[in-house]
Amino acid sequence: MKLTVMRMAAAAVLMAGLATGVAAQQKNVTIGVSIPAADHGWTAGVIYHAERTKALLEKAYPGLKVLVKTSPSGAAQANALEDLTQQKIDALVVLPFNSDELTGPVGEVKKKGTFVTVVDRGLKDASIQDVYVAGNNPEFGRVSGQYFKDNLKTGDIVVLRGIPTVIDSERVDNFEKAIAGSGIKVLDKQFANWSRDDAFKVMQDFLAKYKKIDAVWAADDDMAIGVLEAIRQAKRDDIKMVIGGAGMKDMVKRVIDGDKMVPVNVLYPPAMIATAIQVTVAHFYGGAPVRGTYLISSPLITQTNAKEYYFPDSPF
Amino acid sequence: MKLTVMRMAAAAVLMAGLATGVAAQQKNVTIGVSIPAADHGWTAGVIYHAERTKALLEKAYPGLKVLVKTSPSGAAQANALEDLTQQKIDALVVLPFNSDELTGPVGEVKKKGTFVTVVDRGLKDASIQDVYVAGNNPEFGRVSGQYFKDNLKTGDIVVLRGIPTVIDSERVDNFEKAIAGSGIKVLDKQFANWSRDDAFKVMQDFLAKYKKIDAVWAADDDMAIGVLEAIRQAKRDDIKMVIGGAGMKDMVKRVIDGDKMVPVNVLYPPAMIATAIQVTVAHFYGGAPVRGTYLISSPLITQTNAKEYYFPDSPF
Repeated sequence: MKLTVMRMAAAAVLMAGLATGVAAQQKNVTIGVSIPAADHGWTAGVIYHAERTKALLEKAYPGLKVLVKTSPSGAAQANALEDLTQQKIDALVVLPFNSDELTGPVGEVKKKGTFVTVVDRGLKDASIQDVYVAGNNPEFGRVSGQYFKDNLKTGDIVVLRGIPTVIDSERVDNFEKAIAGSGIKVLDKQFANWSRDDAFKVMQDFLAKYKKIDAVWAADDDMAIGVLEAIRQAKRDDIKMVIGGAGMKDMVKRVIDGDKMVPVNVLYPPAMIATAIQVTVAHFYGGAPVRGTYLISSPLITQTNAKEYYFPDSPF
Repeated sequence: MKLTVMRMAAAAVLMAGLATGVAAQQKNVTIGVSIPAADHGWTAGVIYHAERTKALLEKAYPGLKVLVKTSPSGAAQANALEDLTQQKIDALVVLPFNSDELTGPVGEVKKKGTFVTVVDRGLKDASIQDVYVAGNNPEFGRVSGQYFKDNLKTGDIVVLRGIPTVIDSERVDNFEKAIAGSGIKVLDKQFANWSRDDAFKVMQDFLAKYKKIDAVWAADDDMAIGVLEAIRQAKRDDIKMVIGGAGMKDMVKRVIDGDKMVPVNVLYPPAMIATAIQVTVAHFYGGAPVRGTYLISSPLITQTNAKEYYFPDSPF
């Protein structure tokens, strides 16, 4: 018994020694993460993935501190950047509210020698960023269109657009290119601002106007939910499928469950914030510079691969 | 004293408990890394960074095993992929010898459900890869040309090309676009196969042919070394600067030291293999899929930032 205690004491000393050895090599890095508050489902997903990545990486790298700050507006985010700078951050990972208000403030952070990673929404001056992580909007449209071409093959569809932006045009243009030459005809397309409520109203109009619609490209999961509700209330049974996009958990769950109205989804992951934080951490702990542009793919989510994109704990 | 021993014993139990807790959560992932053997300086750098990243990441993630395999030919690399597959790898990070010989074998690995990250040299079928990490060749040429335009401003230069490939064309085309409208005249350009010896011979010809050369775009660090040796042997003092590219440590050291003949370098980092391995590891430990294309920047390396790109322990 005494021997056992002595052995354990020796083990304690040895383990304490190992712990000190690790501590001596420890590199201290602080990364600020500035993201919009949860103004819609997708940004709620961004916050979830930022917090999750913070926990995972702080565990893997003792000495790493990740500070996640959310802001309800562009002006608030500019202030948040000043606060983060005062906490002496080595790097900033920022998903800007918008380019107009944030280009100046992020530029100021950069001038202090901070490593800057920009996510999703680009700044007006690309020279500010060290790393840019973004979704692939042309691919998002192309993959969606290709699915219609391969599976619906022929029929009449309606299309919901987001907010008039470059992102929206890249998606819709590539969708239309992808269905060209098929038997698919676009009856109508209208802006619904990536909003559930607006999409509900736009879809009501479409349903009143067109007596036969074979399928809907809702182009976004929030809009898809509005569209599905409008169809349900109208008790229409002509519509075979509604394709959204982003990877919202409720929609991915429908794909997993084999829901015929929602057979697939197209990824535009809020988890791109996780990739951005990981790459930024690799810059400091990986031993080599990582400057570059990371374009996150928009693959088709089918029943086969859907589990990989399903985050039941996420709000999105 | 007895109390102290007891406390230490208690601590040992506690620490053992924590260790068990960590072990229980430990995720076992095996990543195979297949790269060419060191056939020239750059690939030697790739091996250095692969081994370094293996050590860093295996320390950060207990349960992670990174197997680095080098192969002296395309056929040997195809065999190496079979060996790695038999070791039940979860992911493959591959810098293919060439697209022709490796597209099939990497496709076979993919068919087994392995996550595939391709580095630098693309495969003939892009649908095989989950992640693609590559250098930015148009930027490499543009940044080099911009430096000539901003600093030499006017004068006669000669250009050395690599091997006739898309990579070489993208570099040279963008270099020429960047110097357009300046007072810089390209006297001549010849292929020297990214080889030190070939560049030495090509430069000897240039020196015999042109009595006044103001600067050389060697476009690669191995070629720059051949060019510098030819100038030294010819005892010519008209040439003001020789600009290579890649980030070879001897050349970066010259930039750090303020060598006027080698004032800058342009990055095309063998460390892109490190980024590729890190991103692949993030796919398994980061909790979110990372599929996409990562284009590594080719920034100008100047005396100000050169230390960040200097790896004295690397063979390259």
